[in-house]
Amino acid sequence: MPVFLNANEPGFDTQFAALLSAKREDAVDVDDTVAAIIQDVRTRGDAAVIDLTSKFDKLDLTPETLAFTPAEIAAECARVSDADRAALHLAADRIRAYHSRQMPDDQRWTDDAGASLGWRWGPVSAAGLYVPGGQASYPSSVLMNAIPAQVAGVARLVICAPTPHGVSNPLVLLAAQIAGVDTIYRIGGAQAIAAMAYGTETITPVDKITGPGNAYVAAAKRRVFGRVGIDMIAGPSEILVIADADNDPDWIALDLLSQAEHDESAQSILITTSAPFGQKVAEAVAARLTTLERRAIAGASWRDYGAVIVVDDLAQAAALSNRIAPEHLELCVADPEALLHQITHAGAVFLGQWTPEAIGDYIGGPNHVLPTARSARFSSGLSVMDFIKRTTIARMTPGALRAIGPAAERLAISESLQAHGLSLRARLDRLNAGE
Amino acid sequence: MPVFLNANEPGFDTQFAALLSAKREDAVDVDDTVAAIIQDVRTRGDAAVIDLTSKFDKLDLTPETLAFTPAEIAAECARVSDADRAALHLAADRIRAYHSRQMPDDQRWTDDAGASLGWRWGPVSAAGLYVPGGQASYPSSVLMNAIPAQVAGVARLVICAPTPHGVSNPLVLLAAQIAGVDTIYRIGGAQAIAAMAYGTETITPVDKITGPGNAYVAAAKRRVFGRVGIDMIAGPSEILVIADADNDPDWIALDLLSQAEHDESAQSILITTSAPFGQKVAEAVAARLTTLERRAIAGASWRDYGAVIVVDDLAQAAALSNRIAPEHLELCVADPEALLHQITHAGAVFLGQWTPEAIGDYIGGPNHVLPTARSARFSSGLSVMDFIKRTTIARMTPGALRAIGPAAERLAISESLQAHGLSLRARLDRLNAGE
Repeated sequence: MPVFLNANEPGFDTQFAALLSAKREDAVDVDDTVAAIIQDVRTRGDAAVIDLTSKFDKLDLTPETLAFTPAEIAAECARVSDADRAALHLAADRIRAYHSRQMPDDQRWTDDAGASLGWRWGPVSAAGLYVPGGQASYPSSVLMNAIPAQVAGVARLVICAPTPHGVSNPLVLLAAQIAGVDTIYRIGGAQAIAAMAYGTETITPVDKITGPGNAYVAAAKRRVFGRVGIDMIAGPSEILVIADADNDPDWIALDLLSQAEHDESAQSILITTSAPFGQKVAEAVAARLTTLERRAIAGASWRDYGAVIVVDDLAQAAALSNRIAPEHLELCVADPEALLHQITHAGAVFLGQWTPEAIGDYIGGPNHVLPTARSARFSSGLSVMDFIKRTTIARMTPGALRAIGPAAERLAISESLQAHGLSLRARLDRLNAGE
Repeated sequence: MPVFLNANEPGFDTQFAALLSAKREDAVDVDDTVAAIIQDVRTRGDAAVIDLTSKFDKLDLTPETLAFTPAEIAAECARVSDADRAALHLAADRIRAYHSRQMPDDQRWTDDAGASLGWRWGPVSAAGLYVPGGQASYPSSVLMNAIPAQVAGVARLVICAPTPHGVSNPLVLLAAQIAGVDTIYRIGGAQAIAAMAYGTETITPVDKITGPGNAYVAAAKRRVFGRVGIDMIAGPSEILVIADADNDPDWIALDLLSQAEHDESAQSILITTSAPFGQKVAEAVAARLTTLERRAIAGASWRDYGAVIVVDDLAQAAALSNRIAPEHLELCVADPEALLHQITHAGAVFLGQWTPEAIGDYIGGPNHVLPTARSARFSSGLSVMDFIKRTTIARMTPGALRAIGPAAERLAISESLQAHGLSLRARLDRLNAGE
């Protein structure tokens, strides 16, 4: 059974703090192994990637077969049913429409001193997307990672997706095609991350790597960070539902279970103003857990990390939610817009009972790659911003330099940086001489 | 002497690649030491911070004297000259004006399906700024880090600045006061980073830590990343100047030296369309190096990492610049705006001969915390964006769910995530029953 807490009972603060700090992930230390794999790929290039793929994925490749050919992709995509294909296209269209609004504007202006200032955004030149194999091979994640890069204007977009024993996921290939991916390599693990970061004879390096992966992939991303940009290292998924008594307990139970079924380390929490409703939801979860396909996983998650918290009012619910800073937050209350105003930290918010979190995983439009483990306090979900960068622009006129240059020289001198000061002084002297 | 290359001579590609990959920093491995310091601060709190400050900074503190009192800050600030004070205020005003334009808008709209979508930006609740002691104690960096946080609306802003032997920098304290910092702790090193990340009895933890520091500070920031957000880990500074023959060689020499004087590992490169001009700049650098206060540092940097590269035309210069992805880029050419259009990767661009890089270090307006070591390929300088985060918003109506819910259910089933599908199906069935 999950924890059942009342926010107004003695000892709640301690119990809540324990819930917040529960260590939900056993970080396997694979760093030495990963360091060796990266070094091997840097040294031996394609040969290392091919050897490691043979070893880990039981698949024998050559430099020529590292990437799927267009014909192979077309053949795989042809296996996708019409219904799945239509669903993927609708999802891609909606995700693209949402992310297209994220492109920020360039700015340029002239200030009172006559200085022309501004900035300009531009895409990274090449991005690499990692797609896990096996159970976690999600076509929806391909769309969520590749479409923001495509919208950003990234010129070259590649995917690495392991195909253990040569088995690929047609939906992943179709999603990649829809999202404008140029090349798909059938490699995975730390060796794929190393190949994308450093390049091999066959694989041209990229500038940014995103996408989820296992402990080896995560460790490799940490190691290549700096050489290339990376997205966040995501932890187990989480959902927080704030619900009043006027909800169907079974709907809320299914929403909680839709995170719990991801991972035994996932966390699902209900905060409710009604203790009887909280009890009904717990009963509905238990009932669903008798038949759910992934009941072993979802049951362990709910048992070990699930919680029902009863509060006096929605203000108290919002305050607790802000301490949790949840990845996903459902506001199943009569006036979700009013409650939204009280929410300061959350990755994604779903308003009202007709907005199950699962709609956001697939087709709502917002990204499903979101900050976990309370990091919504300081970070955001994946977006177009992850694939662009800003160049700041400054242009002085002689008049502008005369107006603000002396103060800059003053500060340079105060910091004992003489050459900085002289680079200003030499120009100011010329201006003064010309008067 | 620095490297003198011609982009059209045999062997240039190899020499240029060597320049790009020159390892300019000996990363001292202090990670074990830093791990122990962090653990000590987590375990013993204030007592650990006080002991470590006594050991490393030769300063004995108590929990009551960890932070400067308002009276102490006022007394230190009173020591600043009027000229320095006026320069700091002008810099702060200009930096604030520039960064105020960076606040992005919230968005909310309703799409064709009737779904209400959008996002909302909000500040991190608390930010901590690290300010190094000694030579690298720069008031300009206080402004560059604190003002974006202030503009972002961060409610609590603290500084950690070591004061070895109890000696503080009045300009740093004044800059902090001008930038709206709430509390200044006289502590430094990995212990300061640990205290800001995890908190102690006296120091309330923050959500985001920014600011430069030595190898211990950098290692500590890497270690607390995830618990809190951090800014980039900056490497040695760099400047690339693209100049035609119509420039004063001494001005360009001073611009190159104003990076070289930062650090023996700094890198200054001139790309020019005129070999004779390149020669004149090299001579001017040599002449300035005979008298420059920091000639030992600047001379070593120029000798070991400096370069003059002669090209045929500005298109070739831009192509090389984009491969370098410089932190600072000066365009000292007749039409810098035209050349700017060819620049794809750079942290900050300075246009024309009246815009020495040093103006941007202090008072131009744009931030001087910029991506080093070619990371401008994928990252941006510090900005308001570093202190805010995005919450995405989705709200379905029954009609919207009916329109797009079935496709989401389809994709959930294709990913074998049954509870995801059921959370949609339960609501769709209700809608269908109500028809």
